Amino acid sequence: MGKNAEPTYVVGFDLGGTKMLAAVMDHQDTILGRAKRKTKAQEDPEVIYGRIAGTIDDALQEAGITKSQLLGIGIGSPGPLDSKKGVILETPNLNMHHFPLADRLKKDFGCPVVLENDVSTGTYGEFMFGAGKGYKHVLGVFPGTGIGGGLVLDGKLYTGATGAAGEVGHMILVPHGPMCGCGQQGCLEAVASRTAIAKDMIHLAASGDAPSVYDKAGTDLKKVTSGVILQAVDANEKKAKAAVTRAAEYVGLAVANCVNLLSPEIVIIGGGLVEKLGEFYLDTIERTMKQYALPFLVKNVKIVPAKLGDDAVFRGGAALV
Amino acid sequence: MGKNAEPTYVVGFDLGGTKMLAAVMDHQDTILGRAKRKTKAQEDPEVIYGRIAGTIDDALQEAGITKSQLLGIGIGSPGPLDSKKGVILETPNLNMHHFPLADRLKKDFGCPVVLENDVSTGTYGEFMFGAGKGYKHVLGVFPGTGIGGGLVLDGKLYTGATGAAGEVGHMILVPHGPMCGCGQQGCLEAVASRTAIAKDMIHLAASGDAPSVYDKAGTDLKKVTSGVILQAVDANEKKAKAAVTRAAEYVGLAVANCVNLLSPEIVIIGGGLVEKLGEFYLDTIERTMKQYALPFLVKNVKIVPAKLGDDAVFRGGAALV
Repeated sequence: MGKNAEPTYVVGFDLGGTKMLAAVMDHQDTILGRAKRKTKAQEDPEVIYGRIAGTIDDALQEAGITKSQLLGIGIGSPGPLDSKKGVILETPNLNMHHFPLADRLKKDFGCPVVLENDVSTGTYGEFMFGAGKGYKHVLGVFPGTGIGGGLVLDGKLYTGATGAAGEVGHMILVPHGPMCGCGQQGCLEAVASRTAIAKDMIHLAASGDAPSVYDKAGTDLKKVTSGVILQAVDANEKKAKAAVTRAAEYVGLAVANCVNLLSPEIVIIGGGLVEKLGEFYLDTIERTMKQYALPFLVKNVKIVPAKLGDDAVFRGGAALV
Repeated sequence: MGKNAEPTYVVGFDLGGTKMLAAVMDHQDTILGRAKRKTKAQEDPEVIYGRIAGTIDDALQEAGITKSQLLGIGIGSPGPLDSKKGVILETPNLNMHHFPLADRLKKDFGCPVVLENDVSTGTYGEFMFGAGKGYKHVLGVFPGTGIGGGLVLDGKLYTGATGAAGEVGHMILVPHGPMCGCGQQGCLEAVASRTAIAKDMIHLAASGDAPSVYDKAGTDLKKVTSGVILQAVDANEKKAKAAVTRAAEYVGLAVANCVNLLSPEIVIIGGGLVEKLGEFYLDTIERTMKQYALPFLVKNVKIVPAKLGDDAVFRGGAALV
């Protein structure tokens, strides 16, 4: 294809708190080039922006494509953001406050730019190319450091009045429960995120009930990775395993509430915890969901792990263009 | 308009557990005729069907319209039902199991028939003609004997994979809480419906803490109507008032969870409790919703009482045709 052909290529972009990923795809969604850099999220916004543009340039170069051949760029970024205006608003994990990312990229790359919440974008990616392919009503739940959610309803990304729908992580399940980062108490995220599990783990490490955790992380919350949690489960440290079970049950309860409200055909569980913990974790979520949702709705919903891993967000971004 | 004109009239029908309502509307949604009968829900299905057809006949007659002028009939009925096939499946309050209502009416009236869940239909009615007019994303919550919910998303009635989405009443808010009619524990309905309030009221009546309730209902659950509840509130019987406040707070919490998940523009509270209890009840729901939902979403959502009362379901049914 010559360099003066009609613009038919799209860039999908995943702007994460730790790393950023760009991929160039053709109209058959084949990946022609990829690039990856560290985000270094606390640096100056202009420096981060420079890295974003540079990563896209790298991916274009690998694909052998020029800017003029771009149909558009689709970005998934942590929220809250204004998707209509393409502006990142405030995000705790990224020093880009009120940054007009879409406009800047549009100017630099000469093509339309779509900006959406990363969890919505990841759910859309799974819907188009992954575990949700062929379904019409999809709920995505991504337990990790926090717990994000995304919705595809009637075959379209659903983001509600504000563009910020899907906040399953802040469903309050335990009134007067543990503190959540959002300022409330007892949100799903506060009782079931990796952070919530880690809080239990260091408690157990301190009391001698989770020696493998103590061995790897001491009693330091930040050192309890999904890998450390997995190790405690694999070592069959009973109380540690119970803490993970409890967290998965809360995810299952929240999913049940969502199933009752939305009657999706499929629920996709993605993110770091399910990737590491696998069946044990997913089965607990599924069992609990089936226990608590209305039988008629349970019969008509499947619960599956995400398929695309790190590719979900940029694939979704590209598909949104 | 002559009797041989193009079919331009629609019938909206509300099939309730106690009464049934039919209305004939023109293409400008003006009501030309109405009729009403008792449902007598436990009689033989054919007898009930005869009354349904008869009520529609009555409304047509009042409007001066013949069957041949009908564009269609839209029915709201208690669920669960199969809206694609137009069949009522199982419903505790109506002796019409697996009854092909749409086909029967289609045969008898010679026009297309739409059958939807009554709460969905009522929400759609409010969206088209009532409190939700002009909005795109609407959540309807109807606390009464049970608690139903309906969704209009992106300007369309949303019923999910099964046609039964919107079950906000079975959102579990209190794990291991009071028994719910659905077999679970701690559903919104189990802690906040009129029945849930009535359970508290007869308890208070028995212990001498709600004399006005005791006076009207003794300790008989079935005698605690919304009117009896209102009287206890008006009499400022403290514990009775606290029981109502608690129930309204649970509705507010469930609405907050829905707002976080769906980011609607407007939440409409309808049904018997808000009609009777008014501002005191609605304000408590609103205050609690604002306390628990994410601030960014709260800023972009209104909470209002339903406007159409008993007309919501048949108006929604007509609009769905």
